[in-house]
Amino acid sequence: MTTTRSLVAATASAKLTAQDMKLRPMGPTSVKLDIKFSGICHSDIHQVRNEWSAGIFPMVPGHEMAGIVTEVGSAVTKFKVGDRIGVGVFVDSCRECEYCLADMENYCIKGPVASYNSRHYDGEPAFGGYARETVVEERFAVHIADDVDLAETAPLLCAGITVYTPLTHWNAGPGKKVAILGMGGLGHLGVKIAIALGAEVTVLGHSASKKADALAFGAVDYLTTAESIGIVKNKFDMILNTTSADLNVDGLLAMLRVDGALVNVGLPGTRQSYNPFSIVDGRKSIAGSNTGGMKATQEMLDFCAKHKIGATIELLDGSDAAAIDAAYERVVASDIRYRFVIDAQKI
Amino acid sequence: MTTTRSLVAATASAKLTAQDMKLRPMGPTSVKLDIKFSGICHSDIHQVRNEWSAGIFPMVPGHEMAGIVTEVGSAVTKFKVGDRIGVGVFVDSCRECEYCLADMENYCIKGPVASYNSRHYDGEPAFGGYARETVVEERFAVHIADDVDLAETAPLLCAGITVYTPLTHWNAGPGKKVAILGMGGLGHLGVKIAIALGAEVTVLGHSASKKADALAFGAVDYLTTAESIGIVKNKFDMILNTTSADLNVDGLLAMLRVDGALVNVGLPGTRQSYNPFSIVDGRKSIAGSNTGGMKATQEMLDFCAKHKIGATIELLDGSDAAAIDAAYERVVASDIRYRFVIDAQKI
Repeated sequence: MTTTRSLVAATASAKLTAQDMKLRPMGPTSVKLDIKFSGICHSDIHQVRNEWSAGIFPMVPGHEMAGIVTEVGSAVTKFKVGDRIGVGVFVDSCRECEYCLADMENYCIKGPVASYNSRHYDGEPAFGGYARETVVEERFAVHIADDVDLAETAPLLCAGITVYTPLTHWNAGPGKKVAILGMGGLGHLGVKIAIALGAEVTVLGHSASKKADALAFGAVDYLTTAESIGIVKNKFDMILNTTSADLNVDGLLAMLRVDGALVNVGLPGTRQSYNPFSIVDGRKSIAGSNTGGMKATQEMLDFCAKHKIGATIELLDGSDAAAIDAAYERVVASDIRYRFVIDAQKI
Repeated sequence: MTTTRSLVAATASAKLTAQDMKLRPMGPTSVKLDIKFSGICHSDIHQVRNEWSAGIFPMVPGHEMAGIVTEVGSAVTKFKVGDRIGVGVFVDSCRECEYCLADMENYCIKGPVASYNSRHYDGEPAFGGYARETVVEERFAVHIADDVDLAETAPLLCAGITVYTPLTHWNAGPGKKVAILGMGGLGHLGVKIAIALGAEVTVLGHSASKKADALAFGAVDYLTTAESIGIVKNKFDMILNTTSADLNVDGLLAMLRVDGALVNVGLPGTRQSYNPFSIVDGRKSIAGSNTGGMKATQEMLDFCAKHKIGATIELLDGSDAAAIDAAYERVVASDIRYRFVIDAQKI
């Protein structure tokens, strides 16, 4: 059995410890990579702490992987040894349903195999990116350009695609006014990508603490809750909610123009409510979006490479499991600008 | 002062009585019409009964008018005496905001002047269509084809445009599966129009009582709540909610395909809630829509004339005010297939 050194939560909420975990066997269409960098997504914490549903333990979190190909299966055509490669939030799908056939593997009817806290269709648990190596089917990996920073690229594999898909689907671009609600790991990439798409971007923040950063990223304005809810009307074509907080849905809808959409990628843990008049008046929408398909993920990486967009990161030493646990606390406290990335070869 | 015989609610919840009410004075761009038929919309009842907000009394309800032009102002170019003409839910707008300029007077920023229970910009109360005559600005009236039934056309001026706009905006048409939730005054026109647009239509009903009618209208299926909620998944591109009942929002969203929309034109009186996962999983939307602009209203009437679509109606004698009150009770009890229309020349 081939193994790889990984950071493991042995049981729900356990501290991370370094252990050797089983690697998927190589098949004709699989690719092995050295994971150089692995981003920390807020969802890693929810899952390690068993906050969403019954987790599969031991768990190796991580679904934002950037690395280098070290081995390819006999039938692999997309990658060769030495290629820079990314792996994101899922590593398999049925490949034959209408959504898989339409490049929306993220909405696969059978259900995509998540990169961790999931089971492959053969029943084996899927282990994620807090590891030195992984093996993945070539269809579920993407190319990373030669001239980008691998560490800053890792978070694009989840956070980047999560905001890129709705921004492009709802036509953020020239002439459009887009508000990004919340400027954390997701939100700061939303700001950068929406600006690169040509939209006029305003950041809606809880407090003014990130105003200078938002303007430095290129936002035209930064409004706190007190400066926006109940005050701003008929302004934005789209509000992208990247927070997991309970929302003042009606207050946000009032900021939208006719045909505007409040698009949610952040996931509050509780039900949200709205006044039906708030959507009927102005033909508005409350919508959601979940990551993106492989084709869109490649398109997003190419777009970000072209526009020199990476995450703004703080790098963590993979050999220091306690530092990762401490980073989790800082993520929960929103005390990170803007994404932690693990130097995975040190694990 | 010129007056016209009207059915009037003198005070909130008062019985309707016939009285002579003031007509708007004719101006250079106004048109006078004999109202031949006036539809009863459920919103008339809410407003006569003061259930939405403080009503303006005395009130002449009615915003579904079909008639014949009897006089035109000196600058009128759109109509001539003898033309068949329709007047709907609003009779003025600012005419200069971005939405008025974009043929969406229904979303006028100043606020359109509703056909009744409203005030003209000069402060005079607006009286509606339960009357023998009205005077309207030509911009806010539409042509009715010569070969359609005027009585069956009257309800199109509110109910028709209310369903036509979202069906066309969300691309109901060939290859699309559309569900109409609720088959009353709005819903039965939603079924007819969606079918004429080329969509495959399913009716979602509370009970099975209207199944035969739905199939006769051309729906491919009729499902009761018990047959659909929690059972039907990934089926519809759009669900058009025409009811004012509280919704099982998550149950309805589950019936939608990826990128599907639950579009509300019915207005529940209470807040509605959703699980954020229900919209994120499948990039779904909860949306609303409110009537339509004048250009769309004309387009809708032309479409309905071409496809021989009228409301299925029960005609009421305008001279019998008590019969109108009784009809109100039947509307509230959903005991009408499918729209009451008043023979307004008998008022």
